[in-house]
Amino acid sequence: MNRHERYEHGMKVLEQVDGEAGQRVVDSLADVSPELGHQVVAWAFGDMYARPELPPRDRQLVTLGVLTALGGCEIELEVHVNAALNVGLTPSEISEALLHSAVYCGMPRAINATLVAKKVFGQRGLLPITNAG
Amino acid sequence: MNRHERYEHGMKVLEQVDGEAGQRVVDSLADVSPELGHQVVAWAFGDMYARPELPPRDRQLVTLGVLTALGGCEIELEVHVNAALNVGLTPSEISEALLHSAVYCGMPRAINATLVAKKVFGQRGLLPITNAG
Amino acid sequence: MNRHERYEHGMKVLEQVDGEAGQRVVDSLADVSPELGHQVVAWAFGDMYARPELPPRDRQLVTLGVLTALGGCEIELEVHVNAALNVGLTPSEISEALLHSAVYCGMPRAINATLVAKKVFGQRGLLPITNAG
Amino acid sequence: MNRHERYEHGMKVLEQVDGEAGQRVVDSLADVSPELGHQVVAWAFGDMYARPELPPRDRQLVTLGVLTALGGCEIELEVHVNAALNVGLTPSEISEALLHSAVYCGMPRAINATLVAKKVFGQRGLLPITNAG
Amino acid sequence: MNRHERYEHGMKVLEQVDGEAGQRVVDSLADVSPELGHQVVAWAFGDMYARPELPPRDRQLVTLGVLTALGGCEIELEVHVNAALNVGLTPSEISEALLHSAVYCGMPRAINATLVAKKVFGQRGLLPITNAG
Amino acid sequence: MNRHERYEHGMKVLEQVDGEAGQRVVDSLADVSPELGHQVVAWAFGDMYARPELPPRDRQLVTLGVLTALGGCEIELEVHVNAALNVGLTPSEISEALLHSAVYCGMPRAINATLVAKKVFGQRGLLPITNAG
Repeated sequence: MNRHERYEHGMKVLEQVDGEAGQRVVDSLADVSPELGHQVVAWAFGDMYARPELPPRDRQLVTLGVLTALGGCEIELEVHVNAALNVGLTPSEISEALLHSAVYCGMPRAINATLVAKKVFGQRGLLPITNAG
Repeated sequence: MNRHERYEHGMKVLEQVDGEAGQRVVDSLADVSPELGHQVVAWAFGDMYARPELPPRDRQLVTLGVLTALGGCEIELEVHVNAALNVGLTPSEISEALLHSAVYCGMPRAINATLVAKKVFGQRGLLPITNAG
Repeated sequence: MNRHERYEHGMKVLEQVDGEAGQRVVDSLADVSPELGHQVVAWAFGDMYARPELPPRDRQLVTLGVLTALGGCEIELEVHVNAALNVGLTPSEISEALLHSAVYCGMPRAINATLVAKKVFGQRGLLPITNAG
Repeated sequence: MNRHERYEHGMKVLEQVDGEAGQRVVDSLADVSPELGHQVVAWAFGDMYARPELPPRDRQLVTLGVLTALGGCEIELEVHVNAALNVGLTPSEISEALLHSAVYCGMPRAINATLVAKKVFGQRGLLPITNAG
Repeated sequence: MNRHERYEHGMKVLEQVDGEAGQRVVDSLADVSPELGHQVVAWAFGDMYARPELPPRDRQLVTLGVLTALGGCEIELEVHVNAALNVGLTPSEISEALLHSAVYCGMPRAINATLVAKKVFGQRGLLPITNAG
Repeated sequence: MNRHERYEHGMKVLEQVDGEAGQRVVDSLADVSPELGHQVVAWAFGDMYARPELPPRDRQLVTLGVLTALGGCEIELEVHVNAALNVGLTPSEISEALLHSAVYCGMPRAINATLVAKKVFGQRGLLPITNAG
């Protein structure tokens, strides 16, 4: 694949996984770092995410763990909570994954990530979550 | 103690230490991760904070250090600057603790934490601080 | 459950998930912080890990993401790569999860975690991994 | 130099490098931690930044790397993207430096820093950047 | 104070607080970054640590929190566990401070810091600790 | 370029920049995550590092800042201190860059990175450094 084809391939993966939320992040980079936008699409989604060695649901569990631990990634976490829902994780499973992360990166990071999840769940009419208490 | 008693015990500690600010964080979790709210109260405050091996004032000095170093914990830092005042640290001591942390985690983290402290001090009519210059 | 019963319950979970590697970490804490050892067993495994809302395989994907992102957790990552194998993740899936994390926390963290996985895979006779290229 | 002279010396460096953006951060600390403001000026700029062993342009490349990797430093990054422009880095070079950092600290940190750069570039009429795609 | 006097002043503070462990770190920097060694002594200890607004015992609680949260600071944590003992914190209080930090930065960071404390306590004949279970 | 050509292109860049140290890291991944090794070479070096928008010397200043701030990247920092020397940074400039980073990410991270630089400088007969005190 050439550069353009790699981008097109990645965009298809991004659209399936992240929907509009991912597209908005890429759009926001267009006038300041078009290459970063290209790499997010062509490399992160086209080359890496699309690999068949791990299904999307598993990838989102890893991603939720990484973004929660990093902290300060509210924009990206919003994209990836949406993505997690899109690839089949339930709100209860997402909340539980963030609760689980508290053991390893502490309560504040878990609370911050959970409040991002709350925002996304609210936007999609998924609150209150069930089966997590 | 059973699960409910552990929660009640933790809530008493939380109320003494954090007052309304802590309660608001727990409330914000109710519809998205009630178990995280439960663990903050029952485990973090009931099991851990209440241990007599270290008094609350000492715990808040450690907590200020951890939250400043982590970064991106403005919500939690606001709770814990309030808590620090509630358990007997003065505004001057809190500012100095954050200044001290600059040596170990750098100026930006210390500035960010200090601006959260400023917000809390302002809400409680404690600005300008005295005896810290 | 009382304190002792919570510990016993957590120890059963820890033994199923982490085997000897987890036990060694708890043992290493016995003379310096027995309460930290207790909390790892009773709270982290007994209260949190054992919750049915997320199966162990999913929990380990989140944990691998968190520990890779945190960095500097070689001891804990060694425990949790073992745990990941114990609960059904294949070496190929673990390597892919760590590769995936590179997108979100960068190449150095992913490399460091992968070298810990290599050590564990080597100890268990699982090198070279197959089906991951 | 005495304490006051060290401050004056640092203020001259800060004004050359950071302009108004740096001054605003120092001003914001005046009533909550005047000593932190003093140390930012007298130590960070007067003692450290002013050293001739590395020119300002090189220092800003290092600073951009550090602040991008830390995350959660939007306030400071805004100051230092301004500073980077002031000491001779072009918008294209700054964007590329942040893109480069993605390899080592991941896409989310690089995206966050790039969006801060976008804000600063926009304020200074430098969007869209040229020569970076 | 001139540069040399600031160094001498800082060295007196460092010797009181850190003893040999701090001196060894400074010595290790002599041939690669003498200025970093100078700044550790003259600025970190002479200008910052010596300020009377917070006593040494309080400073060490903050420092333990910061270093535990940062992770990957085993060398510095070894110095500062020694320092904590030197300024009056007991082994039990230090262990409890690290246990407390687990709430905010997670179990792995707390375990790692506790194992450094164990090493220092062992070197000083303070194991097993008492009154912490 | 196809997958193999991208790898070959990246390997040429890696050899120029990192020499043997980079090759050793890639080799160490061969049996556990050949795809991570491929991505380090083909993407990090071939696609990203080779871009002409920023020269190698500037890239290494950013990289030193990122790796110092991340912490726990001794393996990668060793590669990149070597790389920094290979692309024209002097030992004095590298030490100064790490000293500079102390302002933004604190003394412990700067000390740790400087001790890695010391190891590399020693291996290449460059100690003691000159012109940095």
